[in-house]
Amino acid sequence: MSNQPNATSAFNHKKYRAFPPLKKVNRQWPDKLIEHAPLWCSVDLRDGNQALMEPMNIEQKLIMFKLLVDIGFKEIEVGFPSASAPDFNFVRQLIEQSLIPDDVTIQVLVQARETLIARTFESLKGVKKAIVHLYNSTSLAQREQVFKKSKQEIKKIATQGAHWLNSYAAKQPKTQWQFQYSPESFTGTEMSYAIEVIDAVTAIWQTEAHAKQVLVTQLPVIINLPATVEMSTPNIYADQVETICEQIARRDRIIVSLHTHNDRGCGVAAAELGVMAGADRIEGTLLGNGERTGNMDIVTMAMNLYSQGIDPKLNLSNTDKIINVVEQCTQLAVHPRHPYVGELVFAAFSGSHQDAINKCLSVDDSKRKDDPNAHWNVAYLPIDPKDLGRDYQQVIRINSQSGKGGVAYILDQHYQLKLPRWLQIDFSQHVQHLSETFASEISPIQIIELFTRVYLETNKKISRYDISRRNNQEELTVAFTPRSGAKDITISGKGNGILSAFVHGLCHYYKKSIILVDYTEHTLGQDENAKAIAYVQVSIEGQRFCGVGENTDVIHASMIAILNAISDDI
Amino acid sequence: MSNQPNATSAFNHKKYRAFPPLKKVNRQWPDKLIEHAPLWCSVDLRDGNQALMEPMNIEQKLIMFKLLVDIGFKEIEVGFPSASAPDFNFVRQLIEQSLIPDDVTIQVLVQARETLIARTFESLKGVKKAIVHLYNSTSLAQREQVFKKSKQEIKKIATQGAHWLNSYAAKQPKTQWQFQYSPESFTGTEMSYAIEVIDAVTAIWQTEAHAKQVLVTQLPVIINLPATVEMSTPNIYADQVETICEQIARRDRIIVSLHTHNDRGCGVAAAELGVMAGADRIEGTLLGNGERTGNMDIVTMAMNLYSQGIDPKLNLSNTDKIINVVEQCTQLAVHPRHPYVGELVFAAFSGSHQDAINKCLSVDDSKRKDDPNAHWNVAYLPIDPKDLGRDYQQVIRINSQSGKGGVAYILDQHYQLKLPRWLQIDFSQHVQHLSETFASEISPIQIIELFTRVYLETNKKISRYDISRRNNQEELTVAFTPRSGAKDITISGKGNGILSAFVHGLCHYYKKSIILVDYTEHTLGQDENAKAIAYVQVSIEGQRFCGVGENTDVIHASMIAILNAISDDI
Repeated sequence: MSNQPNATSAFNHKKYRAFPPLKKVNRQWPDKLIEHAPLWCSVDLRDGNQALMEPMNIEQKLIMFKLLVDIGFKEIEVGFPSASAPDFNFVRQLIEQSLIPDDVTIQVLVQARETLIARTFESLKGVKKAIVHLYNSTSLAQREQVFKKSKQEIKKIATQGAHWLNSYAAKQPKTQWQFQYSPESFTGTEMSYAIEVIDAVTAIWQTEAHAKQVLVTQLPVIINLPATVEMSTPNIYADQVETICEQIARRDRIIVSLHTHNDRGCGVAAAELGVMAGADRIEGTLLGNGERTGNMDIVTMAMNLYSQGIDPKLNLSNTDKIINVVEQCTQLAVHPRHPYVGELVFAAFSGSHQDAINKCLSVDDSKRKDDPNAHWNVAYLPIDPKDLGRDYQQVIRINSQSGKGGVAYILDQHYQLKLPRWLQIDFSQHVQHLSETFASEISPIQIIELFTRVYLETNKKISRYDISRRNNQEELTVAFTPRSGAKDITISGKGNGILSAFVHGLCHYYKKSIILVDYTEHTLGQDENAKAIAYVQVSIEGQRFCGVGENTDVIHASMIAILNAISDDI
Repeated sequence: MSNQPNATSAFNHKKYRAFPPLKKVNRQWPDKLIEHAPLWCSVDLRDGNQALMEPMNIEQKLIMFKLLVDIGFKEIEVGFPSASAPDFNFVRQLIEQSLIPDDVTIQVLVQARETLIARTFESLKGVKKAIVHLYNSTSLAQREQVFKKSKQEIKKIATQGAHWLNSYAAKQPKTQWQFQYSPESFTGTEMSYAIEVIDAVTAIWQTEAHAKQVLVTQLPVIINLPATVEMSTPNIYADQVETICEQIARRDRIIVSLHTHNDRGCGVAAAELGVMAGADRIEGTLLGNGERTGNMDIVTMAMNLYSQGIDPKLNLSNTDKIINVVEQCTQLAVHPRHPYVGELVFAAFSGSHQDAINKCLSVDDSKRKDDPNAHWNVAYLPIDPKDLGRDYQQVIRINSQSGKGGVAYILDQHYQLKLPRWLQIDFSQHVQHLSETFASEISPIQIIELFTRVYLETNKKISRYDISRRNNQEELTVAFTPRSGAKDITISGKGNGILSAFVHGLCHYYKKSIILVDYTEHTLGQDENAKAIAYVQVSIEGQRFCGVGENTDVIHASMIAILNAISDDI
């Protein structure tokens, strides 16, 4: 590769032009601060889902919906029922099985076409309340190239859609309706035209609906401003939002909502500056799944508020659970440097960082004894990792220098044990404790004895197991002795693999949330009698535990490892 | 998990307080636009490297350095030589082996301590020019809790360091020196105090150095403003940068540099607003590797400029190469939604998006025939994927709906071929072409015949190979027939695995950049004579090609697959 573009790549910035700025007058937002959490709307089940290589099945959708409810979302966009049969069926299931809590409103997306709107209202029959989210594209690029229609014609699509929402809603008067309109591709739309279309739509909903006595009039209209594609620096988006907030009609009876994407890596910044510019509500997804580069990441924005002392109105403390569900539903791994939740974000590798953290933590510790609300002020750690179920051990102990010459190296070289990193961290605490007791260097024999004592010498035994597989689903029954002298326990579970079925059975038996966070195994030696050794990390109600199991049978070794990770008095 | 924080998680926003805003008067930056690229400085080999679980070895450092030079970086921070022996040795190697091009300046980091400064200048002996980057922590948190020193004492650390730089530089007068100072943890420092320290340091470098006739005086001093930890919304960082630019002494002889991190997910936004606020230079890393959540991602920021018609002054067209080197050096996979480079960022799954893209592409196509610089204006695609070596096929063909019932399903069900997704995409082009010819549905037999013809029926043969492994390094020699009737070619290569050694040999023989982008294999059937089938995707000079190979020997199958991916007339 040379410094000059090669012939095939066509790397040519002259093909592009700068996004035109707004020449905003009397700009207010740079002096504003965010002082409370916006209304949050999750679009994981709609925008997030439609961007997956393999969209969620109904079981995954239910798991995701339940997580969103548990976290505290009060508005959840659950699909595009008129465009997708699975989405239609999912909405029906939520309603017919009464899965929507009273304080949660589901939202569905629909284009401004009558057949689709009719089908949408059909999908919502019997729901107590719902947000119907109408959209059409308003940008110059789409008007000219995709729809080949004039401004008037495009506005007509929106207003006609708004009328249909009134009519269909009036036919299902037992439901409490709320209406939302998105001028899709808003950021590519001229502001004066966006305002013209928005005002035309809200007039229909706020005056005509009232005349028809549709219940929607009791609830404010939501106007959503999508950065369908992120096209400019976030300050320009904030200027657009402030312009809309200043100039639309009946602002006091409208909830202004933002829906940003991350094409320029600034989706969170745009949403934050947009809230400073006057928006009330944010649409986004957990950890930013969504079309292309993803939607705005609600976890990051909510934790940004949290770190400034603002109640985010979402409980994000069980990070392990959130990561687990998102990875399971999207089949996309969370990046190790993902803000707040990635496995490296609370790690300090540099000695000077570690030293500063240690000193600040000790100051924090003494402050916090007097006042649990004492202000956090620790160098290199924007928030206390413990708030998200992470341990300081994960922060100040990870270090490839110390790791290489250390305990992991000895266990590998002397005993062929290849500990995964998270187990190295867990075990190093025990080693440190031992070294403090001895006040001298510790020998390899002492280390392996300690390792055996901590992870392997339990009295848990598996007496038998039966496994069967049908329709890609594992069903398994396991009998085990939980401790010396105790009676056998028999559990049953299902899952898409043996270990997930086993964990499912344990969850059910112990009535706790147990998640298999990490798993790795290898053989010890190479002959045919070689044992397998399995290392697991499980999260029990948000707290992490490690376990190890050893057996000639790898399944047996893995199950023992999981049992060993679970303490006797669970 | 309930909606309420559980006892162990301590999820409590009251522990935190809001970052105090600046009450900036006469704010200018929101009306500014970025009109040209800033000076770029890569810190991949320093900040990026120190944040890795396994820091780069010398070979990886050289590969990274060469990539940075090829992309067009003119300033590269190569390490912290006084704190790390590997960094010291790497700097020596760069100098002694004359690996630094004349138009590239290396930069090294050092704390304000004399022994470290002496060692730093020792590492730089014989270099033509270099930037010595001095830092000390100036934030309130670090002054009070870590150093337990007064403002005066902390300033003294900086000014003493500045003096030492003058003295040591004067002793090596053949080198052209440039000095850089970072008030580390700048964002947590009171602005008036930051200015006081900066002015004290620059006075020493701009007046005293002149008196000593140190060559540094010919080059402007660099003042770097690190958001060591991202602590506020990006507009507040921009206010801080604008304040510094307005109030420091001798601004016209100073390069203001920014160094942001991504703790709040806004590292790129902060750097962009900071440039609008007056900064001249940006420190960051490729794809944002770095401490915790990472450094500012230079690829994203440079492509953001590119997408606005601004020459980024970096050639980022060989995305495959950049991803390959970054993944190899950091051992962190690039996220599929990473702006501009992730594998999903140019994918449109929704039918309406695909339709809009198709219509806009056809408009673009006819415009571009008349004018190669015609402005790009395609819905849902902020830039032309071809600029980064990506194909439209990757955009508009990926779809789980069509995939599931389609070609991949048939090949799997009828022939046990489990095609990876990238091969499904590649093959679907051939299938579409065939279906257009036939104008009817295609049978499974036609599909497998087509697959065999496209990927397997080549006349390439491997006549022999020899492999040996020493010191974790594979050395291999392979003799193969490139096409029917041709003479055997014998190549040799080295690598950390067999395939990387083979590709290395091919690169060398054909004198082309060949990268193994993706590789997967499985067995066909379960008996002991089962064949292995290998699927590979290679990037040749930035363009991607697929190949398949089949053999009872898996190594043989893999090498044939690679040969099949390389066309006869390479």
